[in-house]
Amino acid sequence: MAKALSVAVIGLGSMGYGIAQSCLRAGHQTFGYDVAEAPMVRFRAEGGAEGELSVVAGTIDALVVVVLNAAQTEDVLFGVDGVARLMRRGTAVMACATVPPEFARRMEAQCAELGLHYLDAPISGGSIKAAAGQLSVMAAGTAEAFAGLSQVLEATAETIFSLGDAAGPGSAMKAVNQLLAGVHIATMAEALTFGMTQGISPSDFVEVISKCAGSSWMLENRAPHIVEGEYAPHSQVNIWPKDLGIVLDIAKSSDFNAPITAVALQQFLTAAAMGLGHEDDAAVAKVYARDAGLTLPGEDT
Amino acid sequence: MAKALSVAVIGLGSMGYGIAQSCLRAGHQTFGYDVAEAPMVRFRAEGGAEGELSVVAGTIDALVVVVLNAAQTEDVLFGVDGVARLMRRGTAVMACATVPPEFARRMEAQCAELGLHYLDAPISGGSIKAAAGQLSVMAAGTAEAFAGLSQVLEATAETIFSLGDAAGPGSAMKAVNQLLAGVHIATMAEALTFGMTQGISPSDFVEVISKCAGSSWMLENRAPHIVEGEYAPHSQVNIWPKDLGIVLDIAKSSDFNAPITAVALQQFLTAAAMGLGHEDDAAVAKVYARDAGLTLPGEDT
Repeated sequence: MAKALSVAVIGLGSMGYGIAQSCLRAGHQTFGYDVAEAPMVRFRAEGGAEGELSVVAGTIDALVVVVLNAAQTEDVLFGVDGVARLMRRGTAVMACATVPPEFARRMEAQCAELGLHYLDAPISGGSIKAAAGQLSVMAAGTAEAFAGLSQVLEATAETIFSLGDAAGPGSAMKAVNQLLAGVHIATMAEALTFGMTQGISPSDFVEVISKCAGSSWMLENRAPHIVEGEYAPHSQVNIWPKDLGIVLDIAKSSDFNAPITAVALQQFLTAAAMGLGHEDDAAVAKVYARDAGLTLPGEDT
Repeated sequence: MAKALSVAVIGLGSMGYGIAQSCLRAGHQTFGYDVAEAPMVRFRAEGGAEGELSVVAGTIDALVVVVLNAAQTEDVLFGVDGVARLMRRGTAVMACATVPPEFARRMEAQCAELGLHYLDAPISGGSIKAAAGQLSVMAAGTAEAFAGLSQVLEATAETIFSLGDAAGPGSAMKAVNQLLAGVHIATMAEALTFGMTQGISPSDFVEVISKCAGSSWMLENRAPHIVEGEYAPHSQVNIWPKDLGIVLDIAKSSDFNAPITAVALQQFLTAAAMGLGHEDDAAVAKVYARDAGLTLPGEDT
């Protein structure tokens, strides 16, 4: 068995916390950092290692960055208090945020200048799979990056897609996945509320459609939230203006016309404008319900 | 065991032919009719019963109408040579085309005036399941309609959704399903070609995304056609201007704004304008490929 590593996880949100827990469970010395104090305290209580990041950075074998976007990823690595220049040459960096492929390539190059091995490694699966160490990772990077992170990947992922020997394809595949996932959520909302105008209840919708050719992974996962009137966020509405925005930025830079994605984005923007940004992303159905004068389950009549 | 019935199937296309075969296999005397001679000859060679429809109509227990749309359904039943007035009171009519719910309600009422029991019974599953007697049927109608067709449903369907005691909800649910299925096909094409602009091959797309949250029934079913460059039609491009058009007609009559459906329809219309109407509906990817200057598998470079 390979020797235990020393790992730091930066970003203890719903995904990062589960990744940190999975590393801990696999026997690795694991440091957890976040801009918020509470998750750090909680993680240390669960067995997380103690130490200032500025000191710890020079001692770890692997860094996992699980922040919201490209700007935060760059800030963590190369900002004023960036850790990249504090780490030893040969340390591996696993970058999990959804970012443009071009950004991933730039980060890989900047890391390489410092002798760091960057893995373009967006993740999929949600917070429950993150906590269980069963994520899907869309990974691309050098053999050194894969080797340096093999134990971390083993601890956190159920499925690892190896998409190339340099950064970029991992983020590209994640963008493709997010295009589909976001459009499928909005389309589910469009279809469910359209059905309501024809007398089909949300529960009948889920029961029938989930067994028919109109089904999708997202429909089966999110439509029940609408049936239950339950909008506590698993994944927030606000994720989609960000992620579909990244998709359309990439598309624009490639002169690619993505009309369905563009329309789905507008529906999530409208949801955000309605003050639903922090609700579960199934709340995009409230845009359609408002426009059509429908009352969704659990709403006041 | 219930006694064998005498059944007539009108419309021997890819779905109707399978339904007729399934009735025959279940031991029912089965007549098959079509505007084309060839499938009728073929069906009789397989054991189909012989007789002029105008004569047979007054002898059958059940009629199954599996034509393209509402206009053809109305023509079969109530046109110049319409069979409705030739059938005995108490005969059951199973109407399988994708039609507006309001049309189904009108047909039910017109049939009721003649003592006929109309089942609003759109089908889903494709030609292979039709031939195997494993369709999904989204059914709504009176108890008499369900009773009169119980053996036909048993012979042809794997899953029967009973959606109400009057016509309408079957067609409504089918419209909901088609909204999703059509949008999912076009979105698959959008995502697959977007991925190609970022260096992701169609085969990598299918391999990875079908295991991720971005997957859909249609993606898993249709994306492999693009990978194989195989556009012999299972379901034609031309189906979608028709079916998404029905969805948008219903939506319009209910003041329902369906922006994603509307955009997906435009992509299928563009495919039809490119002369792809009779190709497999996965050929909507050729619209994106043309616009982005991409070469899909199997295309000349």
